This record gives sequence, structure tokens and C-alpha cells, in this order.
Amino acid sequence: MNELTELSYALDTFYFLICGVLVMWMAAGFSMLEAGMVRSKNTAEILTKNIALFAIACTMYLLVGYYIMYSSGEGGFLPSLGFLIGTENSVDAVLAGGEDAPYYSMRSDFFFQVVFVATAMSIVSGAVAERMKLWAFLAFAVVMTAFIYPVSGYWTWGGGWLDGVGYSDYAGSGIVHMAGAAAALAGVLVLGPRKGKYGKDGSIHAIPGANMPLATLGTFILWMGWFGFNGGSELKMSDAVSANNVAQVFVNTNAAAAGGVIAALVLAKLWFRKADLTMALNGALAGLVAITADPLSPSALGAALIGAIGGLIVVAAIITLDKLKLDDPVGAISVHGVVGIWGVLAVPLNNGDASFGAQLIGIVGIFGWVFLASLVVWLVLKAVMGIRVSEEEEYEGVDIAECGLEAYPEFSVKK
Amino acid sequence: MNELTELSYALDTFYFLICGVLVMWMAAGFSMLEAGMVRSKNTAEILTKNIALFAIACTMYLLVGYYIMYSSGEGGFLPSLGFLIGTENSVDAVLAGGEDAPYYSMRSDFFFQVVFVATAMSIVSGAVAERMKLWAFLAFAVVMTAFIYPVSGYWTWGGGWLDGVGYSDYAGSGIVHMAGAAAALAGVLVLGPRKGKYGKDGSIHAIPGANMPLATLGTFILWMGWFGFNGGSELKMSDAVSANNVAQVFVNTNAAAAGGVIAALVLAKLWFRKADLTMALNGALAGLVAITADPLSPSALGAALIGAIGGLIVVAAIITLDKLKLDDPVGAISVHGVVGIWGVLAVPLNNGDASFGAQLIGIVGIFGWVFLASLVVWLVLKAVMGIRVSEEEEYEGVDIAECGLEAYPEFSVKK
Amino acid sequence: MNELTELSYALDTFYFLICGVLVMWMAAGFSMLEAGMVRSKNTAEILTKNIALFAIACTMYLLVGYYIMYSSGEGGFLPSLGFLIGTENSVDAVLAGGEDAPYYSMRSDFFFQVVFVATAMSIVSGAVAERMKLWAFLAFAVVMTAFIYPVSGYWTWGGGWLDGVGYSDYAGSGIVHMAGAAAALAGVLVLGPRKGKYGKDGSIHAIPGANMPLATLGTFILWMGWFGFNGGSELKMSDAVSANNVAQVFVNTNAAAAGGVIAALVLAKLWFRKADLTMALNGALAGLVAITADPLSPSALGAALIGAIGGLIVVAAIITLDKLKLDDPVGAISVHGVVGIWGVLAVPLNNGDASFGAQLIGIVGIFGWVFLASLVVWLVLKAVMGIRVSEEEEYEGVDIAECGLEAYPEFSVKK
Repeated sequence: MNELTELSYALDTFYFLICGVLVMWMAAGFSMLEAGMVRSKNTAEILTKNIALFAIACTMYLLVGYYIMYSSGEGGFLPSLGFLIGTENSVDAVLAGGEDAPYYSMRSDFFFQVVFVATAMSIVSGAVAERMKLWAFLAFAVVMTAFIYPVSGYWTWGGGWLDGVGYSDYAGSGIVHMAGAAAALAGVLVLGPRKGKYGKDGSIHAIPGANMPLATLGTFILWMGWFGFNGGSELKMSDAVSANNVAQVFVNTNAAAAGGVIAALVLAKLWFRKADLTMALNGALAGLVAITADPLSPSALGAALIGAIGGLIVVAAIITLDKLKLDDPVGAISVHGVVGIWGVLAVPLNNGDASFGAQLIGIVGIFGWVFLASLVVWLVLKAVMGIRVSEEEEYEGVDIAECGLEAYPEFSVKK
Repeated sequence: MNELTELSYALDTFYFLICGVLVMWMAAGFSMLEAGMVRSKNTAEILTKNIALFAIACTMYLLVGYYIMYSSGEGGFLPSLGFLIGTENSVDAVLAGGEDAPYYSMRSDFFFQVVFVATAMSIVSGAVAERMKLWAFLAFAVVMTAFIYPVSGYWTWGGGWLDGVGYSDYAGSGIVHMAGAAAALAGVLVLGPRKGKYGKDGSIHAIPGANMPLATLGTFILWMGWFGFNGGSELKMSDAVSANNVAQVFVNTNAAAAGGVIAALVLAKLWFRKADLTMALNGALAGLVAITADPLSPSALGAALIGAIGGLIVVAAIITLDKLKLDDPVGAISVHGVVGIWGVLAVPLNNGDASFGAQLIGIVGIFGWVFLASLVVWLVLKAVMGIRVSEEEEYEGVDIAECGLEAYPEFSVKK
Repeated sequence: MNELTELSYALDTFYFLICGVLVMWMAAGFSMLEAGMVRSKNTAEILTKNIALFAIACTMYLLVGYYIMYSSGEGGFLPSLGFLIGTENSVDAVLAGGEDAPYYSMRSDFFFQVVFVATAMSIVSGAVAERMKLWAFLAFAVVMTAFIYPVSGYWTWGGGWLDGVGYSDYAGSGIVHMAGAAAALAGVLVLGPRKGKYGKDGSIHAIPGANMPLATLGTFILWMGWFGFNGGSELKMSDAVSANNVAQVFVNTNAAAAGGVIAALVLAKLWFRKADLTMALNGALAGLVAITADPLSPSALGAALIGAIGGLIVVAAIITLDKLKLDDPVGAISVHGVVGIWGVLAVPLNNGDASFGAQLIGIVGIFGWVFLASLVVWLVLKAVMGIRVSEEEEYEGVDIAECGLEAYPEFSVKK
């Protein structure tokens, strides 16, 4: 029987690691999506931001974030401060049996969690694109991934007060996606819109992204990676019920994304008379964000509907944020924030263990914490080092100013 | 022993899901391949087509396709009509033992199958690129994925009459790839060639694709995804024989693709005096299509040869179709149709259980059904809503007309 | 118990196959990285090289390379010559039990190994980019993957003399990466720099890559694929200790890459005053190469430091090689060679079973063999068919000359 226990432990660990690889891959997805949605003169900088934020997230979460999120005891508001990632399970512990015996490697758990924090941070970079200073952004990334995200992450997944309240968020529509959007919104408010985006007469000028194939590739990468994001959040694979659950999560995740594409594309066609590709892409992501809070309870058809509603919401949200002069070049706040809220609120529709009250408390708690903490950090950064590039740098493009190179140095650009 | 049974069930389910993720990823591969092979003015539209057809395929197969394909009883021509995807296995059923006990999650089966139907549909989009109306294409996708593909899919994999006849097609050289090509051919015949492709004097004008790195990326994605496509089609992983089989399938799939690249590249060099990259890419895909009908029986060397012959065939087929004025911008009919037939016919060379007679019946049956059914749908769509964009839209590019945006809005295009 | 043994065999086989898929995916990573780092006029050719070398590597290793590397007996210098890949394990052999019973499919082992040889070969293509004849390169690929790499691979992983000496190289910082770089260095020396790279006055002219998003995508793909490269090199997953080890390898691989990015980016900022994206990308790869020789022994923090030192080294190495007029368009010799040596030497810092002496012997042995053997082959190729394109072809770009097409035929290029 020991061999069976070890084999089961191995399967669960492998499942966790592979799901983690898929989530890590989402970093490439965000990079390509954002690189495709900005102008060519700002492309190299956003690529630099994306690979650097991923590296920072992995490092800071290793240093302190993981400890804060998972070692702080039950029911609390304030987490413990700590360092590094603890010890691996011994074989004896694995074989001990009983409820508390570990059934997957602690290192595989860290790997899965560390790519989640990178996802939350990736959401921010798109919203502040094309006008923020690179190093101010990276400084924010340090605080966000070491502290802000782990604290609210602790509240639910680490056994803190939101878990006690009954807040339900399977893979993090709120804990990851809305949290990232809250940090992004604070940044956008402090930063202001790009030059030329909003006219003095109230006009709104579209600033098309430079490379639609990249943006589409990024969306497909995120879609693929999301199977790890949601599928791994069951945390277990090795018995029949868990296996069935993971399979249901894969099916529902896919169905929701598909529903989001169709709804957003049809709405865009009806509203703007055009099959706007960027809306189809945002529809896919909206479907994925929407189902993330509970990809297990709905039927596949229910998941498709939750995703489709997400697809409708995201189109309306993008239009609305533009009217509010909140300039978000890639629509990150709409996709991850507005639709993230929808996802959290949709949980009680299918899951009898969840309540709208607890979900609302979770939304207010997480959004409030991340938004306010981020706002303070952005304002401090603004005071200390400045967060916005000069007007001339913004006009010339941040690639030359920040990175000293161009993303497409040979291609002639239309004037 | 129950724990062992459950663990085995979990591994098979996980294997199915991961293979399904790889097949889903092929949607990105087709998108990038096609986006790279068309002109820049038609790129955003083909990206829109690709993400939308994937969403439609997933939704229609969920609604009716899966039921038609797998719930229609044995030996028949006409499938049952039905709805949705049935119930998941109970733990009791898993533990019941015996031949009929399920050894993987029904939801993981659905997930694996649903990405297959999307693959079949993806084949069509490339062939009709650069001149078809977007919404007519999407309407076709609805019928193809809900009905046409599931019917002929039922004939073999659902236990219908082709299965009874002894038609052998491991992962679908015929059932998926040739079927997609048959639908594409019908579309191309109804649609006609692109303006300027064929001169009145019989001349053929090359229309190069705009972005070779994208096309290459797409090919590598497809190559990677094919390990799931073929590897998952063993349907089982959890015993030594199955594990050996899956490993053989991975090795053979890779060897066939490699053989296809080398053969196509050398033939292109000899024939055109140039190492034509697009032929190398099509050679890889031809090798993959060729081995798909039986990636288990051949030795690795045999698989490389089957793939190499596929690579030779695809070069000749692309040249021949152009001479026949069948305008297929990405070579989809050659790759998936002509080479798909080769793959089906190659099965009896290595597999004693297959016969040329049954393989021919399968080719005629599947090709005939999909081609004729598709032809009817294309003709109805032509009559009802039109399937071809106006000459002016074709000249200006379908991106602006259909999607209201450009794929590369900043890059100057050579005149 | 037989069922348990078979299930364990199935899990280890599946783990090997999935890791192999991730390593195969690295071929796409090298393709995109290199395609992004060269000029647009040489992009199609380098794509052709990359897909062709992968196909050649898979084919030659199937024909002779695998046999040479793994069937030559213990302790020797000279390997046996042989052919093809042996027989698969029987179920009886799997069930026999004992130390020698196979615990994974021989075919899955071949699959994992074959994608490794392709990785080694991929390293070469970037260094000789933009001026080498395509078919001379492919001829070199035949010899390298059939013979040169398998011989030194045999010395350690096949049980040859370096294994006897105690040379320790978990996943191949030396055996794969430094070996690839040694072959590349020999090629660069024979080939000479690109026209216009080094002025007669000793000036060095930067030749920026044409497509930074592609280069970034390639780096992310390589990062992802490296989880298979290192993670699969544990060779076993199915017990608790192995599972813990694999998880540690995943964590350390990721931490080292992250450390490499941060160190290289900060050093570039301090040195050049710019956050040079290409240095961040090379930093990631340097971190990955550095940890590859022992991703198991260090703590996660130790891995991050090893990667960070790799990131510092790679920046200095790229600058130094340029001063030495060794023209390596993508920095492959610095990333895989110089940092590969660092990785091999770092093993004894954390692993008590390794010694600096044995590591030095390994470096000298592998580098010496691969460099000299490659040099001979390059010189023979130079004498027989020539290895450098004409000056006119180099000026016009090798795409038209070698492949007869352009990578971006529609985009206007700045003069």
C-alpha cells in the first residue's frame, strides 16, 4: 500500500506541476496580447515590463510572498511576515496516512502558486501601457507581489477571515483577476490617459494596436494556460471524484471562453456593425475570467452562459470606461475587474454553498484592500521617482527612452 | 484495490485532458499558419474567423454534435438526434470492474472530442481565405460542427456502418483531416479563386503570405499539438501495453513530421531550385496528416517513410491544384485532403487488421458525404446571404470591410 | 501488485512523454528567438534552417545517434556504431521486478532524448546566422546529430569514461548547451563575421534584430520548454522522493531564470543606462542554462543566485565576444557556452558528490571534442561546397537567394 500512496502522491504532484507550467505560459500570453495591442513605438518596453515583472513576481513570492499567504494561521486579517518557502514533505509524512498527510509535494504547490501571483501582476502592465516609467512600474511590481497580493490571497486561500466568512472563489476571479484590475485602476487614476486619447471637446480617439496576430496569439495562449489555472485549482487529481471534477473544470473553462467569444462578437457586430476582432479576443478572456470563480458547479451549458454574459459585459465595460476617460490600452480593467466581479457574483447561481452576501464582502474586501494599498504605493512612487514619462518621450515612444532599442527597427511606420 | 482503480481512472483522465489541451492548442496553430500565409489586408479577418470558428465548434458540439456522434447505436447510417453531453460516471460505476467499467471521465472524453471537431473546421478557413464573407463562413461552421462532421464521425468512432465495414483510422487522417478538406474543396468550388490569382492567359500568379515567422510558428504549434491529437487517440495510458503504444505513437508522429519536412524541402530544392520555406512547413504538416491514420503499427523508420511520401505528395498536390485553378491560399486541401487519402491508404501496409477495400470505402463514404453535404450548405448560403465579398472589398482587403480594423495598422505596405 | 507496477510504469512513461513534448517545443522557441534577432532579409532562411535542422536531428538520431549514445557499454572513449532504436519493453520485463526492470517505455526514452539532440543543434543556427549557406549548414547538422553529439553524450549519459570520472551534469549545461556552443564557435571562426559588423577602425556596429516580440516569444517558449528539459531529466516520477525531486527541479529552474532576468536587466541599466530587452531575454536563458547542470541540489534561493550570476556573465560575455570580433548575431555562444561552463562549475557548490576536478575534465573533454570535430567538419564543408554566401547574396539577404521568398514581403523596410 505504501507504493500506492507514493504513486498517488506522484500523480498529484505531476498534475500540479503541469498545471503550473500552463499558468507560467500565461505570462507569454499577456506579453503577446499587450505587445499586439499597443503602438509599435511602445512595444519593446511592454515586452521588457512583462518578462521583468514575471521574474520579479517569482523572486519576491519566493522571498516573502508565499510565506505571508500560506503561513499565517486561521481567520486573521493581518498575516505573519516570513521568509522563504518552508521544507519539503518527507516520505514518512507522505506515508503517515490520515486526513493531514500531504498528498502532493510542497514544492509543486509553491510552483503552482508562484505563477498565480505573476498572473495577477501581468494584468497591471497592460492598463498602464504607453506612458508609465519602466522602473516605477517594476518597483510597484515588487510591492504588489511581495505584499499586496499575498495579504488578500491569505484572507481566502491561506485560511484568513474571508475564508471564515464563506467567500467562495475557486481559482480566483476575485483573488487574482479583480485584484490585478484593482491595482491597475489605481495606477490608471494616478497616471492619467495617454496624450491624444481624449480630446478637449470630449471626443475619444481610438488608438489601434500595432499587431493583431500577436494579440490573437496571446489570447490563445491565455486560453490554453487557463486550463492549468482553473484545472489545477481542484488541487487533487488522484481519485475518481477529483478526476471527474478536474474534467468538468476543463470542459466548463473551455465552454465559457467559447460563449464569451460568440457573445462579444455578435454584440460588437450589432453595436458597431463590424466583427471587431479585439472584442472577440476580449470576449474569450471575459468568458475565462467569469468562470474562474466557480468552474466546477455549473453544467457545461451553464458555463457557456456565464461566459457569454461575461462577453457582453466586457464590450459594455470597455465602452463605458472610455466614456469615463479611464484609459486602459488593452481593456484589462474591463476584462479582469468588471468581469471578475461578475464571476464572483455568479457563484451562488450554481453553488449552494455560496451566498451573495459573502461574495459581496469578498469583492469589497479584496477590491478595497488592493485598490487602496496600490493607490498609496503609486502615489509614493509618483512623489519619489515619478511614474510618468515626459511628454517628449511619450511622443517619441518609450522604447527608445527606456530600452534603447526599437521593437521593429526595420519596418517603416505610416505617418 | 479500489484506490488502485481510482488512481488508474485518474491517470487516464489526466492523460486525456492534457492531450486535449494540446489539441486545443492546434487552434492557435491554424490561426498563426493562416495569418502568416495570407496578405496583410486580410489578416485580421482570418484571425477573427479562426477564434470564432473554434468557439462555434465548441458550442455546437456541446449542444448537439457530441450526442449525434456517440449516442446513436451500432452499425447505422443515420445517427440519432440528441442534445448535450450526458452524465458523468459515478464512483460506483468506476469501481464496478469488468469490461464495461469506465476507465476515464466522460467529461474528459468530451473535452478531447470537442477539440477534434474544431480541428476539422479549422482546415476549412484557410482554403477559403481572402474572399469569403465572414458571417457566411461562420454560418457554415455551425452546420459543419453540429451536424456534418458528427454524422461521418459517428460512422466510425461512434460505432456506425464504417466501423462495421472494418474502416481503420486511428486518429482521423480521413475522419478529421480529409473531412475538413472535403468541406473546403466544396467551398472553393462554389467561391472561385481570388481576383488576380489566375490570368486569362492561363498564367498563375503567386500571392505570397505576409508573415513567414507566423506561418512557421503555426506549423510548430500544430506539430506540438499533434502529439495530443495522435497520442490521445490510444484512449488509454494506465497499463504497460497502452503506455508502450502511446510512446510509439509519439515517436512515430514526430518521425513522420520530420520525414515530411526533409522530403518536401529536398523536392522543392530539386524542382524549383530553392529551399522554399512554405513547402517545408507543408511537408511537416503532410507528414503529420499521413501518419494520423495509423501512428501505432509502423516502426519509427516506417513512420518516417510514410511521412516523407506525404511530403512529396503535398508539393505535387499544391502545384497540381494550382494548375486546376483551385485556389487554396494555404494549401489546406493538398495537406489535409490529398495527403489524408494517402494516410488512410497507407494503413494496410503496416496493419494486418486493415484492408485496402475497407479503406477505400471509408474514403469514398466520408469524402462523398462531407463534400456533398457541404456543397449543399455552401450553395444555400450563397443563395440566401451570399458567400463572396464584393470586388471592391476584396481589393481593399476584407479586414476593413468585415472587422473594421487592420492587422498591422502602422506598417507601411509596399505598392 | 502487477496492476500497480504497470500503473507506475504508465505514469513514468507519460511524464517522460510530456516532458519530451515540452523540449520539442523548444525548437519553436529557438526559431522565434533567432527569427526575431536577425534582420528581416534573413528571416525566412533562418526559419527554414530551424525546421529543417529539427527534422534532420530527429531523423539522424533515429538512424544512428541514439544507438551510439546508449548502446556502447561502460567506461569507453569510442562508442559502438549501430542503427535504429532497439526493441520496446515487454510486459513481462516490466513485471519482472528488481533493480533492472524497466520502469518506463524505451520509446518514451527515445522521444525524450531525440528532442535533446535537436536542442543542441538549434544552438548552432543562431550563431552562424545571416551569412552561412543553407545546405552547408544542413550538412553539418547531419554529422552533428548523427555522430558528434552522440559520442560525447555517450561519455556521460551512455555510461562512458566521463561518467566514470565523476563528471556531473544533470540535464546538460555542458553535454547539450556548451556542446552546441562549441560547434557554433568553430563555425563562427571558419565563417567570419557579417559584412559591416566590425569596421576597419575597430568599431563595432550594432545590427538590431527585426522583430522583438518574436524574440520575446521565443524566450518564453524556451523558458516553458525548459521545465521539460530539466524536469524530465530526473527520469522518474512515480515515488515520493522522485516526485519531490521533480518538483524541486521545476521550482529551481524557474527561480534561476527569474534571477537571470533581474541580474541582466539591472546590469544593462547600470552599464548602458538602458533596460535593454535583448539582455533581459539573454538573462533568462542564461539563468536557465546555468541551473541545468544541477537543478536539484540547490535551494530555490540558491538557484536564483546561480541564475543571477549567469545573467551577469552573459552580459559581459556578449560584450567581450564582440570585442574579440566573434560575430554571434543572437548571443548563442555567450548564453550556451560561457554560461554553460559556469553551470557545470557551479555544481560542486551545492552537490557534495561532484568535484571541481571532474567538472573541469568534463568541460575540457566535451568542449575539446565537439569543437575540434566540428572544426574539421566545417573546414571540409568549406573546401567541398563552400559555407559562406556571396557578398552580393549577403547584401541582398539570404532569403531570396536560398529560399526564393521573403519573410515579410509586404512590409516596407527603412533604408
